[in-house]
Amino acid sequence: MLGCGGVAHLYLPVFKYLEEAQLVALVDIDKEKAKYLAERYGIEKVYSEVEEVASDPEIDAVIVGTPPNLHAEHVEVCAFSGKHILCEKPMASTVRDCQRIIDACRKNKVKLQMAHMKRFMRGNQMVKSILDSGCMGKIFMAECHWDCAVPQLIGTYRETEVTGGGNLQDHGPHAFDLIRWWTGNDILEVSASIRIVHPQRPTEDTAVVILEHENGMVSNCHMTRVSYGREHWQDLYRIYGTDATLVVRNDHHFPTTSLQSPQIILYKHRGCIQRYDLGHPWNQDDTVIQNNPFLNQLKAFCE
Amino acid sequence: MLGCGGVAHLYLPVFKYLEEAQLVALVDIDKEKAKYLAERYGIEKVYSEVEEVASDPEIDAVIVGTPPNLHAEHVEVCAFSGKHILCEKPMASTVRDCQRIIDACRKNKVKLQMAHMKRFMRGNQMVKSILDSGCMGKIFMAECHWDCAVPQLIGTYRETEVTGGGNLQDHGPHAFDLIRWWTGNDILEVSASIRIVHPQRPTEDTAVVILEHENGMVSNCHMTRVSYGREHWQDLYRIYGTDATLVVRNDHHFPTTSLQSPQIILYKHRGCIQRYDLGHPWNQDDTVIQNNPFLNQLKAFCE
Repeated sequence: MLGCGGVAHLYLPVFKYLEEAQLVALVDIDKEKAKYLAERYGIEKVYSEVEEVASDPEIDAVIVGTPPNLHAEHVEVCAFSGKHILCEKPMASTVRDCQRIIDACRKNKVKLQMAHMKRFMRGNQMVKSILDSGCMGKIFMAECHWDCAVPQLIGTYRETEVTGGGNLQDHGPHAFDLIRWWTGNDILEVSASIRIVHPQRPTEDTAVVILEHENGMVSNCHMTRVSYGREHWQDLYRIYGTDATLVVRNDHHFPTTSLQSPQIILYKHRGCIQRYDLGHPWNQDDTVIQNNPFLNQLKAFCE
Repeated sequence: MLGCGGVAHLYLPVFKYLEEAQLVALVDIDKEKAKYLAERYGIEKVYSEVEEVASDPEIDAVIVGTPPNLHAEHVEVCAFSGKHILCEKPMASTVRDCQRIIDACRKNKVKLQMAHMKRFMRGNQMVKSILDSGCMGKIFMAECHWDCAVPQLIGTYRETEVTGGGNLQDHGPHAFDLIRWWTGNDILEVSASIRIVHPQRPTEDTAVVILEHENGMVSNCHMTRVSYGREHWQDLYRIYGTDATLVVRNDHHFPTTSLQSPQIILYKHRGCIQRYDLGHPWNQDDTVIQNNPFLNQLKAFCE
């Protein structure tokens, strides 16, 4: 695991449930931080340099969880040594860095998987199966709202220029990937308008985005960190088909901690509404094994 | 009144409540239709040519309610004769025609008022006063959803090419005008993506639009005539301020017929919600006098 920041705390607890692989090393420039976590989770090795990972023959694959502006460099070093890559989103801060990552993995014939963990949430998988069933007719429009009010993020790592940007680069990849995956429609063109509403932020906190997809679909997204009130944390998707509209609300649902199920409702003709349920109680004890998207993502990566 | 189509039926009933002016002539190429309505509403004159209006010295002003592709020609003839103009939306089908309308009115020193009747709905006026109070901080984003499923419109006047387009030209002017008026922020740039989802339609039924405003505000709108289910008729606005979010739902509210009030909710900090009420019972008998936006629009025009 490269990087012992926030995202490491989501990966580390699930390794004890993973039969397909073992976590053998933690890497961080702050070696004390890595040591502390290694002890807590019973991990054998601690490194402070990515080159140490590259030269360790016991390591087959790495999770790149360092800041986005370092992804390209770290992937190149690891891919050159034949390590497979699970790379945290966003892929990188620039198109050039993204291309470096793709080229490094292709050239060295290693697997590259982007860590779009939201594909491994059961609610989102249910949405995928509803769309795949064809019951909605032709999908022609999708919509995402990601609205929250988080002044406490100002000045933190998530909003610095070195990480590549603010709200759009941080949460945008989830929304755009879900829409691509759900509808099977890749993105051809983007029109966007971004801005900094809160004057103390160095990076954008508000964005509206139009995506033109293959097959004529269009998506309309907006995301802000400056939204107040009941709609404080709005994580909403609407998918429009010629026969039905599907509304997905993850507003109160964070998959590793929430007891609340997402709300998935299919609206067909007036009065004909179908609610989807995840099928068994949302149980904290079961969460890691049954619902944890980071565990399921790692399983898919191991395959 | 030029044109005896659908919109004439919204203007004609309110003239008996209007003290400031009298409706003296109805004009339609189908003179029988004009005659029928003139008898029903006690209107003195019936014409079939706009030139008859222009040469009638008793007429001070005209309501242009003919199809949008004829607006420029009809405004030019009337403005040349010194008649003031209340012009139905959309102004015209092309930018060139819009400019002809503006030039004709300016040159002949007659008043031109676009019939943005939604400004005269009490709910929308309440929204204006909330925004003007400054309680929301700086307004940085606005959003409009206009979603409905109206296959019955296919093949009708509202969706023909001669009227200038489909859903976006038909309903878009209302949304864009409300946002401009509410926030006092004119539109500088537009990015949009439009398409025909229902293959039997000759004009667009689906659009997503980003508006860049003066003062850095951005708007995100989407509109479709192919939306199913409970969200069959969704007429929703969200206005984002740095201190609050305002949500306005006119979903079940058509001002000349509905007994249901629009829903206006201000979300401040978590848990602090303010609901606005129009203040007296929504009473069908009172509707024409107190709530009718066409009547109030005519009063403003007469001023």
